[in-house]
Amino acid sequence: MPIHLGSNQYGKAENRVVRIYRDTPRHQIRDLNVSTALRGRFDEAHTSGDQKDVLPTDTQKNTVFAYAKKIGVASIEEFALALADRYLEACPAAEGARVEVDEYAWDRIVVDGTGHDHSFVRSGGGVRTTVVNVDGRGEDRVAHVVSGIKDLVVLKSTGSEFHGFLKDEYTTLQETTDRILATSLVARWRYSGTEIDWDKTYDSIRALLLQRFAEIHSLALQQTLNGMGTSVLEQHGEVAEIKFSAPNKHHFLSDLSPFGLDNPGEVFYAADRPYGLIEASVVRDEAPDAGNAWHAIPGFC
Amino acid sequence: MPIHLGSNQYGKAENRVVRIYRDTPRHQIRDLNVSTALRGRFDEAHTSGDQKDVLPTDTQKNTVFAYAKKIGVASIEEFALALADRYLEACPAAEGARVEVDEYAWDRIVVDGTGHDHSFVRSGGGVRTTVVNVDGRGEDRVAHVVSGIKDLVVLKSTGSEFHGFLKDEYTTLQETTDRILATSLVARWRYSGTEIDWDKTYDSIRALLLQRFAEIHSLALQQTLNGMGTSVLEQHGEVAEIKFSAPNKHHFLSDLSPFGLDNPGEVFYAADRPYGLIEASVVRDEAPDAGNAWHAIPGFC
Amino acid sequence: MPIHLGSNQYGKAENRVVRIYRDTPRHQIRDLNVSTALRGRFDEAHTSGDQKDVLPTDTQKNTVFAYAKKIGVASIEEFALALADRYLEACPAAEGARVEVDEYAWDRIVVDGTGHDHSFVRSGGGVRTTVVNVDGRGEDRVAHVVSGIKDLVVLKSTGSEFHGFLKDEYTTLQETTDRILATSLVARWRYSGTEIDWDKTYDSIRALLLQRFAEIHSLALQQTLNGMGTSVLEQHGEVAEIKFSAPNKHHFLSDLSPFGLDNPGEVFYAADRPYGLIEASVVRDEAPDAGNAWHAIPGFC
Amino acid sequence: MPIHLGSNQYGKAENRVVRIYRDTPRHQIRDLNVSTALRGRFDEAHTSGDQKDVLPTDTQKNTVFAYAKKIGVASIEEFALALADRYLEACPAAEGARVEVDEYAWDRIVVDGTGHDHSFVRSGGGVRTTVVNVDGRGEDRVAHVVSGIKDLVVLKSTGSEFHGFLKDEYTTLQETTDRILATSLVARWRYSGTEIDWDKTYDSIRALLLQRFAEIHSLALQQTLNGMGTSVLEQHGEVAEIKFSAPNKHHFLSDLSPFGLDNPGEVFYAADRPYGLIEASVVRDEAPDAGNAWHAIPGFC
Repeated sequence: MPIHLGSNQYGKAENRVVRIYRDTPRHQIRDLNVSTALRGRFDEAHTSGDQKDVLPTDTQKNTVFAYAKKIGVASIEEFALALADRYLEACPAAEGARVEVDEYAWDRIVVDGTGHDHSFVRSGGGVRTTVVNVDGRGEDRVAHVVSGIKDLVVLKSTGSEFHGFLKDEYTTLQETTDRILATSLVARWRYSGTEIDWDKTYDSIRALLLQRFAEIHSLALQQTLNGMGTSVLEQHGEVAEIKFSAPNKHHFLSDLSPFGLDNPGEVFYAADRPYGLIEASVVRDEAPDAGNAWHAIPGFC
Repeated sequence: MPIHLGSNQYGKAENRVVRIYRDTPRHQIRDLNVSTALRGRFDEAHTSGDQKDVLPTDTQKNTVFAYAKKIGVASIEEFALALADRYLEACPAAEGARVEVDEYAWDRIVVDGTGHDHSFVRSGGGVRTTVVNVDGRGEDRVAHVVSGIKDLVVLKSTGSEFHGFLKDEYTTLQETTDRILATSLVARWRYSGTEIDWDKTYDSIRALLLQRFAEIHSLALQQTLNGMGTSVLEQHGEVAEIKFSAPNKHHFLSDLSPFGLDNPGEVFYAADRPYGLIEASVVRDEAPDAGNAWHAIPGFC
Repeated sequence: MPIHLGSNQYGKAENRVVRIYRDTPRHQIRDLNVSTALRGRFDEAHTSGDQKDVLPTDTQKNTVFAYAKKIGVASIEEFALALADRYLEACPAAEGARVEVDEYAWDRIVVDGTGHDHSFVRSGGGVRTTVVNVDGRGEDRVAHVVSGIKDLVVLKSTGSEFHGFLKDEYTTLQETTDRILATSLVARWRYSGTEIDWDKTYDSIRALLLQRFAEIHSLALQQTLNGMGTSVLEQHGEVAEIKFSAPNKHHFLSDLSPFGLDNPGEVFYAADRPYGLIEASVVRDEAPDAGNAWHAIPGFC
Repeated sequence: MPIHLGSNQYGKAENRVVRIYRDTPRHQIRDLNVSTALRGRFDEAHTSGDQKDVLPTDTQKNTVFAYAKKIGVASIEEFALALADRYLEACPAAEGARVEVDEYAWDRIVVDGTGHDHSFVRSGGGVRTTVVNVDGRGEDRVAHVVSGIKDLVVLKSTGSEFHGFLKDEYTTLQETTDRILATSLVARWRYSGTEIDWDKTYDSIRALLLQRFAEIHSLALQQTLNGMGTSVLEQHGEVAEIKFSAPNKHHFLSDLSPFGLDNPGEVFYAADRPYGLIEASVVRDEAPDAGNAWHAIPGFC
């Protein structure tokens, strides 16, 4: 029959593992959502239903929890790399492994001016994430790490313009030199290698993204994102490229003129849908080949 | 026909109004979700469809946006009280008005160690909320304010026990002297009056709730909530009662023994459903009558 | 200390139990979400942390699953009543029990014109629900059943007017004699007793609600709801009262005049927020006392 | 600076347009969620902020609503193709356009055994979707249509086995010859051309997918998906390939042995997370090149 199996992968999604470090009374917490997937020569599972090559998703899940104890979570990137290698070791038919980890941030609860030893409050300010793809084993092993942040909701109450755009017969938008700019940012950056101080680099890039969003006088969300990405590549030689997905969360100036009220940029209606959706990327000229680095990462062109 | 109209109310839910204060270059932001409702003598709207007594929900919405400019948002409680009074003034058939306001918190983005003038990042740590109910006008006016916080996600990695409970033939739970305690807290407190420094009191109660959650050695979520509420009433004479709704977000110790690994409170599986749901309240003995204070507040017994 | 424990309850929420009847090759499925809660004399659990009176939420969960086998799910109402009685039997300190059950509907997959024996597709058209409250035991036992439907999304593309409403200085809404009327209905009806053919009555009331929504020429959502509720009470003597919560899901006529296009009720923008929220009820004059029937049911006035 | 702009696109996401056909008293409804995006030579918008080449997302939105009137919605595929061509016509800098449309299904409300003329109830059974990508204009134009269904929740209460899988030191899963198989299916199929009876083909493929899910005795979700996809390609020569993304919604047999109860496949616990995630595809050997057909479609490898 002139039909064949196409690309495929399988795994266990959204393993919610919480790792507590309690070696001293001052506990540490790493709160993770881990999704795993294997790809490779699994044809028989699809065609005849024979599972002899398949490392079940249940086993993948067990490995996540066992590794949280066995090797711990020094950083989500190290944890993901170790899991990917383990899956490739355990499953000969697998040619590649993909491990995605989200990490939720917690702050210590403040009591008498000091952070408490073992009581925490979930903080906002975005969810840290990584997607690791490893192809092959031993000398043939190629590992890619794409880390990032999502759900980072930011807003500028001025310092944003939008004008000079192309017009056609369906254009009604007014040009403006002062609007609210707001987005729920997703940023993902590809590292050139894996010899990285993961936690420190994440903190640095996150701070830089926020700083540049604040500093850049915006002529369009595209230009803001480009400026943010350019700064990351300039200051972080270990980053090969960075991609953004940014919904333009529209804040429409409320028309109060029917009520005899002026509204000079003070009262806005925050709309849900539709929203602009801006996707952009900045790439280093001599970036190493991306290979499977962006494999199965949603929402990016 | 021996059938009659029962209780009813109507309004506009989830008006997403953002108020920017830009009198100086250092902007302030108040980001609100406002829901309004009127109750009273609206029988004809239900029975004959005659709308002559009905102030449309669209007008209620317009009033929200106009008032955000006209009187501003000094605090969500003041804003809600003013709206409720306005609706009762504009709509003679209304006997009572309910205005609920959620407020999302924003932090200034830090640039060179300083908070930026007009760039913000959405913070976590819970959503501030108020529900105002006003019955009547002028001398007959009775106003109730129930303020609170929701989506306050907190966790203790130790300092929580659960044992000595009632057992029956369906009991399998093991007793424990050390578990994770975590919840996504909803707390709502009723003020005795309306002469309150709303913002300052909210900040103080929020900090106290967190502090007590951290400090109390827990024998059950009920006991923790009771301790938290008692402290609020002890330190805030202006609070008549406080109610909690707290899902017990179970963190199950992962069984790693099949893999030859010990797990002394280090690796947990964070479950979604089912969850325990604890609802509790603490009341001042001489609290003024609650009247309609808790009218149409979801999830509380 | 002049502070006391207020109202409280506790239980296990959202137990997702699926019951398959497989006595013949033609399987039956009942797919449930069960939430339980106990109220009563649990003061010590709150004040001293002593759990000796507390039937743990884990045991409540186990009971749900055990009863799904032991007595089965003839209907969600019977199942909920049996659970409530069981909890009161097992937990002497409890004075009342509340059991809420949602049921998701499945259709048989059609193969060669016939419904398959054991393959199903989740259907839409609303989620069936019941909330049972039982107070006391034996001769003092009082049981209330409030059943209903939620997430029933309905729309009329004409046959809906809205005009003649009260106007004030914040009114901008245009009157209309032809608009789209759409809602995601929640309806809950209180039965006078418990000797009911639960499944048959549910099917009948659901069909009647839909039929009346279709038939009634609407002058306002209030009037539509009142007509629907009146019909239910007229045709179902076993129903004491019915309550509705109905978001008015606004469909705004798109203004195409800037593009030289007429739009006589053909192209609409379906908005998310804000939405009107209409809550209404119809009550039988000689309805038996509601007691705790509506205890802890969200969103109803 | 050795940094360059990478891939990018922008558009307006989730335009919720409802089109009513009311030429006769028997109305028709098409309820859509439309997302648009343009890609091409928009470098200046990113680098200098000059918007002269940019057709704003607001204009893209206006076009959606205007076209819903101007050309109507004969099918979501035709509508999406027309929009894509329009954007490429209006925006010279664009090299490609992507238009995604979801369609929500409505049934007529039954009154006296007949479907009502203008009253509808939202049905379940999955959301129809299409993603159209058009590159170029005139003779260089290449158009791809990937249509599909999502949120199609299906379950088999028997006829599903899982055994014979690879085992390692982290394996604890028991083999089984009888389990529940359930998923919330996403299926997307690429058409070889655009001369298709879109609505009829969709209905036929949807029915076939359901039928094959029911008929296939499952040895693994992979094998079920492969069988479903193979049947689609066998019976629909106009389909070049089909891809599936299927969460394995685990239904765990409840262990009732502590309560002295047997449980031969009757009582299950439906878990939320983690879930298996199976992604698979079936491809025709002589399928035309996919080009940009799968551009920016989430969740597929």
